[in-house]
Formats: sequence, C-alpha cells, structure tokens
Amino acid sequence: MATQTASQTKKHPTLNHYDIVIVGAGPVGLMLSTCLARWGYRIKHIDNRPEPTPTGRADGIQPRSLDLLRNMGLKSAIMAHKPARVYEVAFWDPPKSGKGIVRTGTWPSCPSFIDARYPFTTLLHQGLIERVFISDLEKSGVEIQRPWTITGFTSDEKADPEYPVTVELAHVDGTFKQTVKAKYLFGGEGARSFIRDQLKIGIKHKDPISYVWGVMDGVVKTDFPDIKMKCTIHSAHGSIMVIPRENNMVRLYIQIASSEEPDFHPRKTATAEEVQERAKRILQPYSIEWETVEWYSVYPIGQGISDRYTLDHRVFLGGDACHTHSPKAGQGMNTAFLDALNLAWKIHLVEAGFARRELLETYEPERKEVAEALLAFDNKYAKLFSQRPPQASEVAAASTHTQQSESSVEEENEFIKTFKESCEFTSGYGVFYKENALNWHPAHPAQSHVILHPSKSNTRLMPGRLLTIADVTRVVDANVVHLEQEIPLNGSFRIFVFAGNPSVTAQALKDFAANLEKKNSFYSAYARPDAAQVSHHERHNPHSFFYTICTIFAAKRPEIEISRDVPALLARYRDHIYADDRWDRRVPDAKAAAHAKMGLDQEKGGVVVVRPDGYVGIVVALEEGSATVDALNQYFGAFCTKKLGGEVCQL
Amino acid sequence: MATQTASQTKKHPTLNHYDIVIVGAGPVGLMLSTCLARWGYRIKHIDNRPEPTPTGRADGIQPRSLDLLRNMGLKSAIMAHKPARVYEVAFWDPPKSGKGIVRTGTWPSCPSFIDARYPFTTLLHQGLIERVFISDLEKSGVEIQRPWTITGFTSDEKADPEYPVTVELAHVDGTFKQTVKAKYLFGGEGARSFIRDQLKIGIKHKDPISYVWGVMDGVVKTDFPDIKMKCTIHSAHGSIMVIPRENNMVRLYIQIASSEEPDFHPRKTATAEEVQERAKRILQPYSIEWETVEWYSVYPIGQGISDRYTLDHRVFLGGDACHTHSPKAGQGMNTAFLDALNLAWKIHLVEAGFARRELLETYEPERKEVAEALLAFDNKYAKLFSQRPPQASEVAAASTHTQQSESSVEEENEFIKTFKESCEFTSGYGVFYKENALNWHPAHPAQSHVILHPSKSNTRLMPGRLLTIADVTRVVDANVVHLEQEIPLNGSFRIFVFAGNPSVTAQALKDFAANLEKKNSFYSAYARPDAAQVSHHERHNPHSFFYTICTIFAAKRPEIEISRDVPALLARYRDHIYADDRWDRRVPDAKAAAHAKMGLDQEKGGVVVVRPDGYVGIVVALEEGSATVDALNQYFGAFCTKKLGGEVCQL
Repeated sequence: MATQTASQTKKHPTLNHYDIVIVGAGPVGLMLSTCLARWGYRIKHIDNRPEPTPTGRADGIQPRSLDLLRNMGLKSAIMAHKPARVYEVAFWDPPKSGKGIVRTGTWPSCPSFIDARYPFTTLLHQGLIERVFISDLEKSGVEIQRPWTITGFTSDEKADPEYPVTVELAHVDGTFKQTVKAKYLFGGEGARSFIRDQLKIGIKHKDPISYVWGVMDGVVKTDFPDIKMKCTIHSAHGSIMVIPRENNMVRLYIQIASSEEPDFHPRKTATAEEVQERAKRILQPYSIEWETVEWYSVYPIGQGISDRYTLDHRVFLGGDACHTHSPKAGQGMNTAFLDALNLAWKIHLVEAGFARRELLETYEPERKEVAEALLAFDNKYAKLFSQRPPQASEVAAASTHTQQSESSVEEENEFIKTFKESCEFTSGYGVFYKENALNWHPAHPAQSHVILHPSKSNTRLMPGRLLTIADVTRVVDANVVHLEQEIPLNGSFRIFVFAGNPSVTAQALKDFAANLEKKNSFYSAYARPDAAQVSHHERHNPHSFFYTICTIFAAKRPEIEISRDVPALLARYRDHIYADDRWDRRVPDAKAAAHAKMGLDQEKGGVVVVRPDGYVGIVVALEEGSATVDALNQYFGAFCTKKLGGEVCQL
Repeated sequence: MATQTASQTKKHPTLNHYDIVIVGAGPVGLMLSTCLARWGYRIKHIDNRPEPTPTGRADGIQPRSLDLLRNMGLKSAIMAHKPARVYEVAFWDPPKSGKGIVRTGTWPSCPSFIDARYPFTTLLHQGLIERVFISDLEKSGVEIQRPWTITGFTSDEKADPEYPVTVELAHVDGTFKQTVKAKYLFGGEGARSFIRDQLKIGIKHKDPISYVWGVMDGVVKTDFPDIKMKCTIHSAHGSIMVIPRENNMVRLYIQIASSEEPDFHPRKTATAEEVQERAKRILQPYSIEWETVEWYSVYPIGQGISDRYTLDHRVFLGGDACHTHSPKAGQGMNTAFLDALNLAWKIHLVEAGFARRELLETYEPERKEVAEALLAFDNKYAKLFSQRPPQASEVAAASTHTQQSESSVEEENEFIKTFKESCEFTSGYGVFYKENALNWHPAHPAQSHVILHPSKSNTRLMPGRLLTIADVTRVVDANVVHLEQEIPLNGSFRIFVFAGNPSVTAQALKDFAANLEKKNSFYSAYARPDAAQVSHHERHNPHSFFYTICTIFAAKRPEIEISRDVPALLARYRDHIYADDRWDRRVPDAKAAAHAKMGLDQEKGGVVVVRPDGYVGIVVALEEGSATVDALNQYFGAFCTKKLGGEVCQL
C-alpha cells in the first residue's frame, strides 16, 4: 500500500532539515503528515497537547471521507471501533395541538440519488480516529513531538531557495528549544492559529451571528424512540440535536445562547446539570437519565473564514485555522481531511519534480471556495428547518435516485432542491473544484476535438468532481472490485482507459500505447529512472510515480485475453485490467455498467484522467492516431515541469 | 459480542476440574475452544506443537465459513491479512492438436444460483487463521498449553457423574505431568489421533485408492495468465492444481503417486527441485521460476472416515481425526470448523441446563453424514473433470441464479446437476442436517396445523438447512443490516418472528407474546433468574441465554412505531426489530424481499426457529391464539429438560 516514492532517496543537508514542519496533530495535520510520510518525505510534526484528543470534539466521518480512508487502507481500523452509523435523520417538533414533541419526518442522510459506496455517516470519537493515523505514521517512522509548540518562523526563498522556512520550536514548559529548516511549514493548529496570527491573516465572518453551544457525550437511559438516530428536536423549551455514538453513547448538542438574543454574552455558560435539565424538558413526554457523562463542554462559536490560506506558498494553513462554523452539519473533520489531501499531493507533485511550483497556487482557491460553500450551506441548512419541516412526499421525491437528475431539476420545488444540495454537501460528494489548470474547462490550454466537453458530449463525468463509483471484475483473478478504490492514495494521477469493445478499439489502444512511448509524452517524460530494475510485483507504479494506469474493457471477463487484447505497456499493469461486466441497478439495461455510468461509449470507450485526490481532471475520446495522447500531453503540460508533446505550456 | 452466560457463574470443585479438555489447537480445537470460552466454560486446551502452524497446511475458507467467522466477529481480523480471494476456477487441458496447454473453460467458484453473502473462497495460511482464534481465546482468558500431549484418559460416569473424565497430560519432553478432571474430552489431534486409537475406533476407507501429494507454497515469476486464479491443469506431463495465496504467493498441488500405479509406494517422495521441474514441464509453453519457496511437503493421503465420533458422549472426536480426504476441494478446515461448532452449542445447551443430555447423541450422526457426503463428493468431483471439461453453455446454465431451481432440475443434464451440487458443497451452503429432534420433519413429536411443512407450504426454508440471507433495515437506527448476522454466535436459539403487515398481524403478535409469557412456555421455563437485574443495554439475551428474538415487519421503516406495533416482550429486543424494506435482485417484484425469499406470507408472516449454528429448526405460521407458541413448545420439548406447554416430551 505505502508505495515508496522517488523522493525517498533524496538527501537532506543535515538532520535539522525537513521537507515540512507540521504544527498540530488534529485531523488536518495528521492527514497531511500521513500522506507525505507514505510518499517518502521527511517530516517534523509537533503538537502542544501531551496526548491525542482524549474525549469529545469532532466525530462525524461523511460518506466521501470514508471512501478516502478506505483508499488509504485506514477504513478497517476505524470500523474496528464499531462506530455508530447514521443512515437517517429524524425531525421532532411540537405537535399542532398539545404539549411535548412528535416526529414530523425522517430523511436519509445520504439518499439514493447520491451514488455512494457507504451511504451513511460514521460517528466515532476524534481521539480514536487520530490514533489510527498516529499508528500509521509510526509505520512510516514519524512520531508526533509532544507537547511542543511553535514560537516563531521566517520564510525567505531568496536567502535559501531550497529550505526557505526557519521554524523555532519549544517544549510547552519552555525547557527545550529547537530551530529547524524546512521547505514548507503547515499550520493545522485549530481556530486559534499562531501561524495565522503571525502572518497577520484576518478572519471574515460570513454570518454575523455567533452562538454558545453546550455539547455532552454520555450513556443514557431513555424511552425516546430515536435515541440511536440523528435527530433535530425543536420544542417549546428549546432545541437540541441528538447524535448517536459508539459504545452506546449519545451526543447532545444544545444551543445555550445566540448573539441574536438581547442578553447574549459569548462567555455565557451552563453546568452539565443545567444542560441535562434542559434536555429533559425538551424531550418531554419522553424521559432521559444519564448513566455516565464522558465529556461535557461549552464553547462559543462563530462562522469565520480565513482571508488567506497562505502568503508565499511555503507557509500554509488548513482545517479549523481557516474556517470555523457550527458543529451541526458534522463537516469540520471532513473539510480538514480534504484541505490536507489537496495540499499533500500538490506538494508531492512539485517536490518530486513533476509539476511546476505554481501548482501550489491552486490550493488556496480550491479549498477556500469549498469553505465558503460550507459556510453558506451551514446557514441555509439551519434556515431550511426553521421555516417548516419537510413533507413526506418531498422527502420521497428528493430521496429517490434518478437517472435524469439534471433534466428534472426544474420540476423540483425550492425545498427539494435545497434538500438535495444539502445531502450532496453533507455526504461530501457535493464538494467540487472550479476551472483551473487541473480541472479542464473550455479555456484550458488543452484544446482538441477529442476532449469530451461535459456539456457538449454524453460524458457524465465533470472535471473537478469525483469519479463515479463502479464495480468491475479484475481480469487476472476474477475478483469483483470497486474501480474507484483500485489505485490506492499513492500521490499519482490515475489514468482510466475505458477501452470499450476490444474488437473495436484494438487499433486505438495500440496507438494510445505507441504514442505514450514517444519521447516527449507525459508517460516518457516522467518515467522512473530505475524502471528497468522495478520488481515484477510492483502493481501501481512500475513506470513512474507520476501516474498509474487502469484499463477497463466493456466485455465479459472470460472474453478478455490480456496477451491478445492489451498492448504491453498497459498489460504491465496486469492487476489493473478489468472487465466492465457487473450489473448495476442504476443502469439496469447497460451492457457495460461502468462505461454507461461514466457516460462513455460502450463500443469506443474513452480515457479519464483523475487527480491523485480522486477528482476528475479531463475526459478524452479514445481515438486511433495520436490525438488522444496529444490531448493528455496538453493537459499535463498546463502544470508540468517539462515540455510535453511539443506543445507550449501555460499555467 | 462475547456475551457472558449463566454458566460463567458456575463453580468447579478444584482448579484441576475443567468443563472440557481439548487436545489439539488446529482449526477444530480452536473453534470449539473459542465458542465454549466465550460462553463461560472452563477449558484446558493443549497442543503438542511448541507454536502455531508456521507455514503451509490448510488455507481455504469457504463462503459459508466466512459467514460463520463474521458471525463470531473474527472476519475482519482474517481479512486484515489481505488473503487471496478465488471467484473463479480455470481449467487447462492439452489442445486438440499440438503441444502445451490451453484454457478450456472457467466457472465461478460460488455461482449466483447460490445466494451467498461472500461468493468467493478466501485463501490464507492456516497459521494466521489459528492466531486469530488464539488471540480471541486470550481475551477469554484461555491460553494453549504447549508443547503438551495427552498420555491417557478414562471416562466413568458412574464413578463421577459430574466430572467423569480423567485425563493424563504431559509435557512432550516428559518432564512434567498433570492429571485433570473434566466433564468432556475432545480429540482434535488430526489424522493420527491418540484418543481415537485408545477408543479403538476404526477408520473406513470409502475410496480404496490412496495418493502421494506434493504441495509447494512460494513466490513465482511466470507468464502463465491464470496464476492468480484457482486452476486445474492437465497436461501430457501430469496434472497440477494452482491456488493463489496472500503476499503474492501461489500454492501448487502436484500428485506424485497414486495407488493405482503398479510401482506405488506410500513413502514415495520427490524433492522440491523435482516438483518444480515437473511443474515447468506441465505449464509449457508458459514459463515459471521460483523467487522463494515458503513451504514444501510431500504426504500420502487416503480417504478415510472414523467409525464413531464418540463412544460415550463424554469423549468426542472431530476434524481430521474423523475424516481425511484429498486437499483439492479445500474442505478440511471448513469441515473441522463445523464439527466443532456443532458440538460446542450442544455441550452448551446441555451444561446450561436447557437440553437433555441425549442432545449430544445428535453430534455424531449429523457430522458423520456430512463427512460421508464430503468423501462421496470428493470422488465425484475428481471424476467430473477426468471425463470431460464442461462446455461454456453448461457453465452458463449452471451459474445463473434462478428462482425455480427446484422445478428446473429435471431439465438439467447430469453434468450441470453434479456441477451445482459441487458448488453448493464446496461453498459450504450444501451442508445440511437430516431429520431429528432439532430439524423438524413429519415424524417429529411437534405436530400442529401451524407447522409449515417444507413440501406442503410455500416456505422455502428447509429444517436442517441454513437460513436464507437477507438485507433488512434496523428500526431504531435505520441501519441496513444482514439479517442472518444480526444475532452473534452466542449459543442461543434464534427466533425470527416475521411479522408481516403490522395492521394484519397485530392480534397474532399480541397473542404470540402473551402465550410466551405463560408459565410453561419455552420462554418462561428458561428465563434468566437474574432477568430483573439485566442492564437495559443487553441486546441479545435480556430474558434468557436459551434464545434471542428478532421481529421483522413487512413494512417500510418509518411506518413502524415500536411503541405502537410491537408487544413489550418483543420490543425489549429493541435492536432486533427490523423493516423488511430493502430491494433484492432475486425477488425484484417483492414488496418485502426477506419475507419473499423465505417463502413467508408478506401479510401474515411466520416464525422461524434457527439453531444456534444457523440451521433452520422449524417454521410455523404466525396465528392468532395459542397455536404458534404451542407448536414451538412442542418443538423445544422434544429435546429440552423441562416439560413445556403441557406437552409430553420425547427425544
């Protein structure tokens, strides 16, 4: 799994020189550290807490994040803790007449219109999730240095172009100090970021209202029927949110104060007993008693977003240091993971010599736009239910999966539209990246008739959005596998060659391979210098750490003969040759479901380039001749270090 | 998971008194030990090897065994080793003209006509599987005593009715000796069983032919395209069988000698180099080279079956001590697991005071018949392919899942029939138990119009066969779950109340609960004495260790209101109330797929009693009045210790 990369062999001038210094070992710091450590980088990772999060904090892993954790080989370690799984959300409100509360509706947390592998939210104590990362880091030889803090830093590319960042570190008790040199510094220190303050980066508040929240984890005894579901409860006595947890626990979120109230004070607080009393009143006529309380906290929170995620593309911020918002949508940890992932592979591509340094400039806009969308969503989500509860028919209409989701949008009312957006957003599948050098668009430097324009072709894949999930059969061992998971998170671009009908595409495939082998192709330009010595067991990166190639035929597995149907270059990835022969309920009549779900021709196929983080970069037709590879050379040329395929490169 | 049972509180007279002495820590001994340790029994477990199996030996976990391991919570630990998965078997034979070998066909190892949760064989080194059990045993406080052996034993129920077995144990070097007293002794020592020899139990050979096999595990470099598939290869130079393994390894089985050959000698052998040379000739025109050899062994094997599995129902045998056969069908470990499981819950039911001691008499006939079927199958399987390879159309016809499998049998040719039987057998789903007190049949003491006779009603469930798999939605948390896995292997009978349409069955359900609460029902007769003190978190055994109850409605989850639709007795199992609302491709038009797959009325439901090992015991209609519970009382009365429901009991 943890493919060693070329960078591993790089030498650092002294033991005090690091590729990156990471401050903070919460979700964002750990994800960044884990990726870069696996890809061979030298890391100094510090945290000012003496040990990982013992209780409380974030706990929601959204469906898309679970995909990501599985892609890193960490899902089973998470699931071994037997987390709670939220499939539905229930809404409770005062009845039209009388006292108490009644269930006014439920809806799926990840409805079937979203084609998700794991259509549920996984709820597990943040400390357990952190420990899964920490034990993986140990395998890569990285230990978090605790309790240490950052006391200062400078970044000067002119003084030292290779290690421009100097970082001052100290034990929290001040007894020890250390100065280290690094190529990068990352601040994943949470909302009160020292690095952000030093950089004098401001915070903007999208919603001027701030809140004080009480949150309590514990084991309860109750006759409230939905205690194992996620619930939003409004009552005459106030509102709470119920979140089931592992080990029979339940988390309650109770809004203690809002800046809209006349006597608001951000330091307003409440004791655990007061919060329990309030919860008892809200839950009437149901009873609730606490057997144990594992964690209780009161904290003020406002919606905030950092003005910048970096100043000089050497010192970066991510996670709560960049965006804070209400805990209700369960997005904090998930957004942190994706901040880190986005930065990790871009640093890797630059440091491995594949991409130009300007690639790092895409980190801030890609992730800041997502944070802005998150904050906007956070507001909308809150308002959605303060207006009125959804009707059963609306939930049903919104939940059903449909193949014509695009065309039927007009018929949907505003409520269903917002609901769908909410679900896409909370599941993580709604995150997308806008047009830039990585995500092809009509103004991209790559221009060719073979590029499949999302709105001018049948392709259902959108650059900047996640690859659609699909089951396929691996040819060499007939294993049924999840195509989107077949390439681990190895920092490489993923080239999916949908090869259609082998008898139709034979020449196109040959031409594809032949053009890859040409001197200036992206394939040849970034070949491993040690390619001749690579073991025949290497599955993912036999030719280069820049890409991994999969070939998928629209044929039944026994019909595919690798030695006959697959050019040697592609056949070298012998574990990455698949038959698109699994039936899929979403395209029940398709002969080749994966091709159909991607919107690719089942006869002629197409080539999909997926970024190392799983988002589609570009989709091109698989044509005879050189046009297909030419277009990919142009695409990669837009951000790569070398001149590819003779085209002029521009970022 | 590891529910503590009533037996845990039992005291033993001295530290030298055990519930059971288990000799041999291979698959059969470990499965027995793990079950009984979890259910609270005191175990002395010895093995004469200084450590678990280091290399080689059995390695195939069949689909049904994987279900069982999952039901024990051990599947993820097995899967963490990244075993190979066999989905298809390939056949290679000499071409009609010319030299070498060609692929003549492939077929699925667990075709879709079998409704399997995991339609593949899992291949993992036996030592790794053993370690998963051993580490689970440690959690229950059981350590295997090594290297110790059994030197003698006596069994005398008259002298000591409670601990009739006296066992002499010794360290293999003779330095230490120990005498212990036990209620039971189990011999899981493999083919050369000391206990079997002492009991003077003979071995019958079904097939008079014996063989010498060579087996080699290693990492190879080859251009043979099916090296990651299970292959049966016949060539002019001999035959081999290829089995993929974890860690890029492959196992080759090569038949070195057969007693049909004139110069046969059971001690005939071959060096690793000779076997490799032979494999190279057989695989021509493909090349094969070994990078490493992890294990190589030559061993003679004959088909044998023990005359008895016990003499006095105190000293038992299981696993290879009872049956030996060719390794080709990959059945050894799986049969061993089921031997142990069958015995474990029967000992538990007797020792916990639920069942009469005669229940133990069902162990030998149930398991011996399976072993006989296994040996018969082993012969048939070998002959099936020596005759002719299957044609593609036959494989297709046999592989397709069909709802009318019963009725279409006549149209199938002998080949397809044998193939289907083979697949059922090798997958483990073909194992079934014949008529006895546990598996209802027309001559069973339980006689009632509500009993759903498998051939005279629509039920598709057969007493003595496994419960059909089905997805359902758990009501309290909306989790989609595998119904057959919802009750862990806790030694309890599983009562599945398929409750049909709640508006139709409301009275029948009330009557069902009311009749359970009557004094002499199986429910009341075996209630936990500490029932009033049981924690409200207890999910599976709040009322008794004798049974766990599940209720499944043919309704959509949000339509089910537990407080309104479920009588309190059933509602106590609040994690075991389900909505039968998941679509199933096998019954695409059914409103309630689980009801439909079981062949139960979607309006009126039915009650299914499943033995602790997952096999159906009896199926009864869910009727208003007392008849349903009366029939269950009669069923349980056939083997239980107490007079139930006023009926006369007979075993």
